[in-house]
Formats: sequence, structure tokens, C-alpha cells
Amino acid sequence: MIEDLITSLVIKNKKRIILLVMDGVGGLQVGGQTELEAANTPNLDSLASDSSCGLMTLVSEGITPGSGPGHLSLFGYNPLKYQIGRGILEALGVDLDVQQGDLAVRGNFATLENGVIKDRRAGRIPTEKNKVLVEIIQNNIRQIEDVKVLIQSGKEHRFAVIFRGPDLNEGLSDADPQQDNQPPVPAKALNPKARKSEHIINRFIEMVTELLAQEKPANTVLMRGYSNYPPINHFEERYGLNAAAVATYPMYRGLARLVGMKTLHGGETIESAFLAAQKNYSSYDFLFVHVKKTDSMGEDGNFIEKVHEIEKVDKALPILLEMNPDVLAITGDHSTPAKLAAHSWHPTPLLIHGPYAIADYARRFTEKECSRGILGNIHATELMPLLLANSLRLKKYGA
Amino acid sequence: MIEDLITSLVIKNKKRIILLVMDGVGGLQVGGQTELEAANTPNLDSLASDSSCGLMTLVSEGITPGSGPGHLSLFGYNPLKYQIGRGILEALGVDLDVQQGDLAVRGNFATLENGVIKDRRAGRIPTEKNKVLVEIIQNNIRQIEDVKVLIQSGKEHRFAVIFRGPDLNEGLSDADPQQDNQPPVPAKALNPKARKSEHIINRFIEMVTELLAQEKPANTVLMRGYSNYPPINHFEERYGLNAAAVATYPMYRGLARLVGMKTLHGGETIESAFLAAQKNYSSYDFLFVHVKKTDSMGEDGNFIEKVHEIEKVDKALPILLEMNPDVLAITGDHSTPAKLAAHSWHPTPLLIHGPYAIADYARRFTEKECSRGILGNIHATELMPLLLANSLRLKKYGA
Repeated sequence: MIEDLITSLVIKNKKRIILLVMDGVGGLQVGGQTELEAANTPNLDSLASDSSCGLMTLVSEGITPGSGPGHLSLFGYNPLKYQIGRGILEALGVDLDVQQGDLAVRGNFATLENGVIKDRRAGRIPTEKNKVLVEIIQNNIRQIEDVKVLIQSGKEHRFAVIFRGPDLNEGLSDADPQQDNQPPVPAKALNPKARKSEHIINRFIEMVTELLAQEKPANTVLMRGYSNYPPINHFEERYGLNAAAVATYPMYRGLARLVGMKTLHGGETIESAFLAAQKNYSSYDFLFVHVKKTDSMGEDGNFIEKVHEIEKVDKALPILLEMNPDVLAITGDHSTPAKLAAHSWHPTPLLIHGPYAIADYARRFTEKECSRGILGNIHATELMPLLLANSLRLKKYGA
Repeated sequence: MIEDLITSLVIKNKKRIILLVMDGVGGLQVGGQTELEAANTPNLDSLASDSSCGLMTLVSEGITPGSGPGHLSLFGYNPLKYQIGRGILEALGVDLDVQQGDLAVRGNFATLENGVIKDRRAGRIPTEKNKVLVEIIQNNIRQIEDVKVLIQSGKEHRFAVIFRGPDLNEGLSDADPQQDNQPPVPAKALNPKARKSEHIINRFIEMVTELLAQEKPANTVLMRGYSNYPPINHFEERYGLNAAAVATYPMYRGLARLVGMKTLHGGETIESAFLAAQKNYSSYDFLFVHVKKTDSMGEDGNFIEKVHEIEKVDKALPILLEMNPDVLAITGDHSTPAKLAAHSWHPTPLLIHGPYAIADYARRFTEKECSRGILGNIHATELMPLLLANSLRLKKYGA
């Protein structure tokens, strides 16, 4: 209901919004300081002092979000309502171009011996071998009846497939015996609409198994996590925003495409990403700029390197500030404290800078200082309405 | 659900609540200070230091409320659930006494020439001319069949009409060609229940057009924005409160009547309004005192004059404090920063004073200081439950 209200109030204008997401930026104290507190961040400090600050909860208190729910929530899509299937996430994560109507599926290479699945992961074959096999499959199976097949390697034994054609429904059981030394199990339609996808998936398994008959140990495949492209209205329709993402990692590029953003490559460094944003600034109403390594270092449990990544963002920040965007917001898609070496449930710091954002008592972009900010602890789905409001894109509600 | 819970817990007592609404009081920094920060407000400062403070969001983050949704929300009515039609708001705004069962309609004077509506706004006739025409209409059309007609001038070509009688349904199409140089369009029932209102409205248009046949350029009328009096339970039923409003402007008097408040005139100054409150203090459980000019000066983009209006409230505040009300709350119905010269989405400062309100770290009644308050950022529909609780009017929920 609020979603529809927002859409009904949207007007268009020429103001530009930049949303900088430092993935997993929030942390936990180690030796008395969080990663953000330990970092030397003169540019972020000065920006925070002149911004509205707060904390942001991505899903709900205590919930640790994955990258999917985290980003959807950031983009204003309630992650409990808009659930993205595993197959779609897997496909996005290997940079497959998922489209409306597609059926996306996760696959495993497996070992078939004497009529049973001897090893559901084919001995975790090396990624390099996986790539060779995927190339064989793709070269030999481009289409099954009226369905296009697009396949892409993941890590070790994993891959993703997109089936593109009419009437492909995700209501199928896993073609996976779930444990080793059991006979293969075909996919089964769980509803009449899934009959065609049942047939296509099982045909795919047969064809691959024939193709790889001489291979060892990866001579068959298991298929699961079927998901259709989710019904999701795009940024343009929802917010009237012509949006683009500057992101290097496939998962984030994919999530951005899912909500209708164009995707631009950010290159290998934070500086190159910010320069790509600068180059494209005037072509879009909204730029989502994604920084990955704050999360990666957190996941590695490397406090010092996460601090360094934060400092690199701070050092490159003037590139974004030079553009003098009408609205600049900085936040994370979740916290990734080095202390946990994993995503966490802690709210992420947030700042909103612009001529209509009240500068508050926060003096740094840290968890504690942002908790003193005027925004309080908002839900991530409230961020987009605030960014629209700060760019004067929402008309008054009611007379 | 929460609404019903609150009602089910209400008990009656003799404690008195004053809700002082400084319309549009929240602002934005100009030269480093907001209007509230720039104002010299010793009384408000001292009260805030001894109160529970916080911020209050009227509709939802990023949403700029009109006066209708803003006040309904303040009064505890979810503005997304209780939507007040344009005709009703127009009628309230020109001080027509809207009642249960009424059909309220917005009208335009227009120019009819050679069978087409030449000008849908009759050249924006002067308000003075409008008043003369409305008087002619009212004197000649007091009733159509069993339906009473009450008409009141608005600005330029606008007016409002109330049709009071049985079975008047709002389900009608606009009697408005929507563009100039098109033939007049009659109202049409959009459902069978609206047949009678279709007939009455079209008869009204005919009668007016005959009456004004010799006038120029305003010789006919267009009718639109039909709205029935909304189904809304009153303060007495909902909260067990005998409530009155001290308000001078028609819109706010009307909104107060809509929720069942008696309306008292506040006179022209803040002091006279506060004295009216003092005089009527012992006759009501709940007094809503409305100060308009903080908003008007904000709308005018006049920072200095908005500061002065705030200072006038501060100066007159001892009149309210002398009464020593059991609960005194001060807030706004939305922000109106002079910097924007318009309503805005920013949460409004709030204080609740009384023996059961914890005094917190806030030292002034400003946006930033209230953001340090113990109430946090509440939704406006949570205010009435807090005021009832602070007057010990809500019993325990559950054993």
C-alpha cells in the first residue's frame, strides 16, 4: 500500500541521486573500536557532519540478510514480499542475463556409477574442469525443442542454467536423490502448469548424461532450485527513475538488472568505480555505486584489511563529491563484522547528504555516531522514499 | 486492530490533555540553523528539558502530508485508511458545516458560449464577484426536492456545495468536460445508488445556468470531487474524550469537527487562542489548540517571520502552563521549512509533558534536540495512545 502510494506521488525532475553502497560496511568492536571507528576517514567524517545520519535495518531486527534480500530492501522492495529464488540468484551470480519469463536452475555435476549417484558433487571437481565441461554442454545443447538453453560455470561442481521459452513453470521437484548411493531421480511437476518444464529439464539431464558418458567423475548432473524470473516492477515504473548500477561483481549487477537498472562496469578499484560513476553521472537520474571489498575483508575476518578498504573509499570519495550530486546517500546492504567473519544482523550506518537534509549531531560515519543522527533507525525500504523526497520528486499527499 | 485495542482499554477520568499544534513548525537549516534553532524560546526550552521529547512522522518516511492527512494522523486516524474526499476538504476549508450523510462537491464557475464551455474557470473571476454570484445562487436555490443546498465561495472561480438529504451517493462522474471548447457534460451515476445524486446535481447545474443567464463570463458551473462524509468514529466513542478545538482557520475547525470535536474560536492572535483555551479548559477533557502562522510564514519562505511566530508562541506559552494541564503535548502536523516554502516530509518535533513523562537529554524544542529525546521517531498515530496513557486513561492489556 505504501509502495503504491509512493508510486502515485512520484514526479520527474532533473535532480540526480547517488547511492553508494559499501557492502557489509558495518562492523563490531575489536580492541574497543569497530572497523569504521578504527579507519582514518577525514572525508567521510566531514560529510557525515554535514548530513542527516542514522542507522538502517535491512530486513528486521536480528535478521542477517543475504546479498539478495539486503539489496532488494535497499532498493525499496520488501524482501519478505519479493523473494528471489535460488536459481535466479545463482544465475545472477555467474552473470547470466536473466530475463522475464526465464526459468533459472542450479545444477551440480555428479558421478553416476552402476545406476546410482555415487557422489552428488563429483568429487568437487576443479572449477577449471567445470568450465571445460560446461563449454562442451553449451556447444552441444543450445536448444531443446522451443526452449533456449544458456549454461554458465560456478565454482567446483556448481553451474547455473537458464531455460528460455514459453510456459516454463518453476513448480518442479528437485532432480536430486538428496544423498549419495541412491538412483537418480527425475524432476516431477508439482502442478499441471509445470509439465513442460518437467519434460525439458529431464530431457536436459538425459542429453548431458549422454554427452558426458566418457567423463569421470563428472558424468551426470543434478538439477534443483528452479525459479522463474520474479514479478517485480522496475525503477522507472516504480520511482520514475532512469537508473544505472556501477558494479563489478555479477551478483550485484544481476540484482540491479532485476529492478531495471542499466549496468556499467566499475573496473577493479574503488577509484575506477567512482570515475565510471563520474563519467556516467549526467546520463542517469540515479546511480547505484557498489563497493565489494569491505564485505570480502569482513568475510575473511580480516579487521585490518577491512579498515584499509574503508580508507580507500574515503580517499576516493572526493571523486563523487566533485560531481556535487543533488542527493548523496552512503550506507551498506548489511553489516559484515570481521569479528564474525560473516554477514550480521546489525543495522548499517546511513548518511543522506543534500540541501534538504538536516545536519545533525553525528560527527563521523560510524555505527555509534550514526546512532546519534536525526534519521533514527529506519527500515531500508524507507530509504528510497527519503531519497525521492530529498530530490523533490514526491508531491504532497492530500490537500 | 491497534485502534480497536486502544478503544477497548479506554477508561474515563478527570485529567485534562492539551495538544498544541504549531502548524508546519519543523524547518530546515538556513545559515546553519533551523527556524526553531534560530528562535529565542526560553519557555519552550525549559519545558522541553522537563519533558519526553522525540520526532514524529505523519504518514510515512519521505511523504509530505497535506493538512488533511497531517491532522487525521495527529488525531490517531491512519491517513491511508481514512481518506477524506476533495469535496469534503473544500467544504471544510470554506467553513461549511459538513455533517454525516452530506454529499460535498467542488464547483467552478465557467463560461458557456454557443453550446461549449469556452473557459472552465470563467476567466478566474475575482473572489468578490464570486461572492456576489454565490449569494444570488444561495438566495434562489435553498432546496432541490428533498435535498437542502448550502453553497459557499472559495477563491477566484471556486466554490463548495453541500447537498444534504437522504440517499446521496458520491459515485458520480465529473460534470466537467476537462478541457475548454467542449460541450458541457452532465454528471453520470457510476453505480445505481448514485441515481438520485446524479439527478440532483444535474438539476442544480440547470437551475444555476438559468439564474446566471445574463451574467458574463461566469454563466454556468462545473461540478466535481463529489465526496460523502467519511465514516469516521468520533473522539468520544474512540477515546472516551470530550474534546474541543481552539482554531481560527476553517480547514482545521472542519477537520476537528470531522472527528467530533466542538470548535471554539481562537481569535486573531496566539495570545487570544491560548486565553480561549484557558477559558474553556475546565469544560473539556481534551483541547486541541491550533496555531496557523508558523505554517503560513514557512509557506511564504519567510524564515525570519516564521522565527518570530515561534517566538510569539513561546511568549504566550505561560498562559497554557498556568493551567498546569495533566498532559501537555506540543508538536506540528508536518514541517514547513522556509527554505522549501512548502510542506515537507521531515518528521516534526514533539514533546510530551506531565508527571509520567520521563525528562530526557533534549534541552530545546528543536529538530536536533528532539532527535535526542526518549520518544525516538514515532508515527503520529501513536501520539493519541501516548496522551491517553499519560493521562492514565488506558488500562492494562491482558492479565
